[in-house]
Amino acid sequence: MNIKIETTEDVEGLGLVKGFKVSGIGCDIRGKGDFSRLDTAIVFSETDANAAGVFTTNDVKAAPVMLDMRRLSENPLARAIVANSGNANACTGNRGMEDAEKTCRIAAGELGLKPEEVLVCSTGRIGEFLPMEKLEKGIKEAASKLSNSAESSKAAASAILTSDTRSKTAICRVDCGNGSSFSVAGMAKGAGMIEPNMATMLAFLATDAKISSDKLRNSLKKAASKTFNRMTVDGDMSTNDTVLILANGLSGVEISGEEISEAFDKAVLEVSRVLARKIVGDGEKITKVVEVKVREARDSEQAEKICRSIGNSLLVKSSWFGCDPNWGRLTDAAGYARTGLDFEKLDLYYDTTPVIIQGQPKPEFKEEWKKIVSRKTFTVDMNLNMGSAEESILAADLTEGYVNFNKGE
Amino acid sequence: MNIKIETTEDVEGLGLVKGFKVSGIGCDIRGKGDFSRLDTAIVFSETDANAAGVFTTNDVKAAPVMLDMRRLSENPLARAIVANSGNANACTGNRGMEDAEKTCRIAAGELGLKPEEVLVCSTGRIGEFLPMEKLEKGIKEAASKLSNSAESSKAAASAILTSDTRSKTAICRVDCGNGSSFSVAGMAKGAGMIEPNMATMLAFLATDAKISSDKLRNSLKKAASKTFNRMTVDGDMSTNDTVLILANGLSGVEISGEEISEAFDKAVLEVSRVLARKIVGDGEKITKVVEVKVREARDSEQAEKICRSIGNSLLVKSSWFGCDPNWGRLTDAAGYARTGLDFEKLDLYYDTTPVIIQGQPKPEFKEEWKKIVSRKTFTVDMNLNMGSAEESILAADLTEGYVNFNKGE
Repeated sequence: MNIKIETTEDVEGLGLVKGFKVSGIGCDIRGKGDFSRLDTAIVFSETDANAAGVFTTNDVKAAPVMLDMRRLSENPLARAIVANSGNANACTGNRGMEDAEKTCRIAAGELGLKPEEVLVCSTGRIGEFLPMEKLEKGIKEAASKLSNSAESSKAAASAILTSDTRSKTAICRVDCGNGSSFSVAGMAKGAGMIEPNMATMLAFLATDAKISSDKLRNSLKKAASKTFNRMTVDGDMSTNDTVLILANGLSGVEISGEEISEAFDKAVLEVSRVLARKIVGDGEKITKVVEVKVREARDSEQAEKICRSIGNSLLVKSSWFGCDPNWGRLTDAAGYARTGLDFEKLDLYYDTTPVIIQGQPKPEFKEEWKKIVSRKTFTVDMNLNMGSAEESILAADLTEGYVNFNKGE
Repeated sequence: MNIKIETTEDVEGLGLVKGFKVSGIGCDIRGKGDFSRLDTAIVFSETDANAAGVFTTNDVKAAPVMLDMRRLSENPLARAIVANSGNANACTGNRGMEDAEKTCRIAAGELGLKPEEVLVCSTGRIGEFLPMEKLEKGIKEAASKLSNSAESSKAAASAILTSDTRSKTAICRVDCGNGSSFSVAGMAKGAGMIEPNMATMLAFLATDAKISSDKLRNSLKKAASKTFNRMTVDGDMSTNDTVLILANGLSGVEISGEEISEAFDKAVLEVSRVLARKIVGDGEKITKVVEVKVREARDSEQAEKICRSIGNSLLVKSSWFGCDPNWGRLTDAAGYARTGLDFEKLDLYYDTTPVIIQGQPKPEFKEEWKKIVSRKTFTVDMNLNMGSAEESILAADLTEGYVNFNKGE
C-alpha cells in the first residue's frame, strides 16, 4: 500500500467526517441574558460508534467526568456527546451527578438514543449547579440543528470555548492507496481560565474508520500522552479535562494490519498534536510557546520530570516573557526536579545554538541567544548525556496579563 | 526549673550572642562601582563552635554549598562563616570550587583560623565567576571590622541581602530559671530574585548554648523542616539555599536533660519561624502571606503534598492577589496533588469561616470570605477528615509586579 496522510488545520470541523453531524447553540448557561454566545454543542454519529476517552487524573473530578468514565468502562460505545461551556458542574455533589445524568437523558430523548449512548462534558465555573431548564431548551435546539454543514461545525467548535480567543480544529485524511480513505477530525477548547474560575481542556475527535474499541483506546491514549499530556500553561490541572473519540466505521476502512494501524495512530496523533499546540498557543494572555526537550536522559521519567520542572517554573516563564536568555533559571529548575542530574555533563541549546556544553557556559553566543528567545516560538534543548530517553513538552510564558486576567473579582 | 523563652524580632543581630562578632562591608561584588552597597559579611565565633547546616536539595548545587556540606560531614565544627551577595558562584565548575576554597583560605588567614574552620555562602547571579580580587579586599576589610556592636550586626544582616527590601533578624533568649540563660539569634535573606537571576534563601543562626553537634544538627533539621522548608514564594528552589548554625557554648548552659533540650529546640524553632515568615513576607512584589493548613490527613506526606499544590498554584496565587475568595481553585489544586482526596469529606475554612463542609459549599458566608481574603494575611484551613496528620506552609500571592520584576532584560 502507498498510504498518504495529510493534516489540515482550522477546518470547518467534525461535520467533515462521514456520518457525523454536529451543532452549537446559545442558551445563556452563563446567566447573563446573552443568547448570542454559543455554549452548548452536540456531536452525533448516525450509526453506532466505538468510543474511548482520556480524563483528568485530578482527585476532584467533575460529575460529567465521573459519568463518562463509568459509561465507557461499562460499554465503550456512544452515539453522541453533549457539551456545555460556562459551567463545569464540578464540586456539585449528588445533584451534580443527577444533572449530568439528566443532561444525557434529555439529549437521548431528542436524538432517539438510550441515555447510556450519550457522553457529557462541561467546562466553566466550579461549584455551581447547571441551569437545567435553560440547558434542556438548549439541548432541544441543538438536536434540531444537527447537520454536517460548515456552519454547524463552526458553531460546535465555538460553543465549547470559554476564555479561548479562537476555535481549534484539525482534520487528518488518510488515503489508503487502494481507492479507500478515512478521516480523523478534532475540535478542542483550551487551558484558559473561565470567568473567575476554572482552566479546562476538552477535545473531541471523530473518525469514520472501523476500529475495535481496544485499538481505539490504545491509539487515543498513546496520542494523548504525547500531546495533551505534554503541555502546560500554568501547571493547573482541571477537574474536567476530557478527550473523547468516536469511531463509526462508515468509511468502510477497517483498521487492521500493521501498516494501516500505524497510519491510524499517526492520524490521531497528528490531529491531537495540532489541537494541543493550538491550546497552548491560545493560553491566557501568553506571548510565547516554547518547546522544552530533554534528551539522553536515564529514562523517560527523568526526562519528563525535568521538562515539567522547567515548563512550570515561574522564574523561567517570566524570563521567557521578558525575552531574557536566562539559562541559570533553566538549570536551576532542571536541578530541583531532583532526578540525579549531573551539571558537569549537561549540554543546553536554544534551538541549535549552544548555551552550555558539558557544564561550561558559552557566552560567546549571547547575542544569538537573545535573538532566539525573543521569537514567538523556540526550543529549549537540554541533553543530559546520561542515557537515551527523550521527552518534550510545550509550555507557555507567564505574563503580567495572565495574573491580571486571573486575579478575579 | 521555671524556663522562660522570649523571642524578639528585628533586633540588631548576631552580635547580641555571647562570643560572636560580625561585620558587613561593601566591595562591589556586583561590579557596578558601588561600594556603599554592602555585599560581604563575616560571622565569627571567638571560640570553637559546633556547627550544623541544612542545604538545598537541588541537583545543581553551587560550589559553596558543596564545600560546606563536605566540611560539616567531615568535622561539624566551625569558627566563621563568610558570605557574599551579588554572585552565587553556582554553575561555575572547578574554578567555582577553587574560588570557594580560596575564599575560606583568605578569611582563615585574616582570622587566624584553619581554612576548614570557615564555612562559605554565596547568593546572587548564577554562572559567573566570583570577582576574587575584590572579594579578597572585602574579606580583609570585613575581618578588620568584626565587632559585637549594633552597627556591625546591622551591617552583616544587610550585606547578605539581594532583592530583599529589608533585613531579617530575630533573637530568642532562654532564661533557665536558675540564674543561667542562653540565646539563639538569627539573620536571613529572602527568596527574592537577584538582578536578573536567582532566588536564594540564606539563614545564619548563632547560639552560646553548649550543645553536642548531633543534637545541634537534629534541632536545626527539625526547625528547618517546619519553617524554611514550609514556605513558598514562587516554588523555585535555588542552587544555593543554606541554613547554618554555630554553637560556641560560652553561656555555660549545657543542653542536656529533657526540659532544657526542649527549650533549646523551641528557641531554634521560634527564631527560624520568625525568619521564615519575614522571608515570605518580603517575597518579591508580593502583597499577601497566606498560611495553608491541611488537617486530618491520612499522613504527613498527603498533607504536605496538598499544602504545596495549593501554595504553588498560579491560579490560587493570582486569586489571592485579586482578593477573590475562589474556593474552586483551592479544591482543584488540592485534587491535582493526587493524594486520594475525597471531595465529599472535605471541610474548608477561610480562617474560621466555613467555605465547604463535607463537600457542600456554604455560600451564605460569601461576604465574610471576601473580607478575610482581602486581608494581608489569612489562613486557608482544609480538613480532609481522613486521619490525624497535619502540615502547613506559608505561601505568597502572585502579582503582576512579580512577573514584571522577574521578566529580566
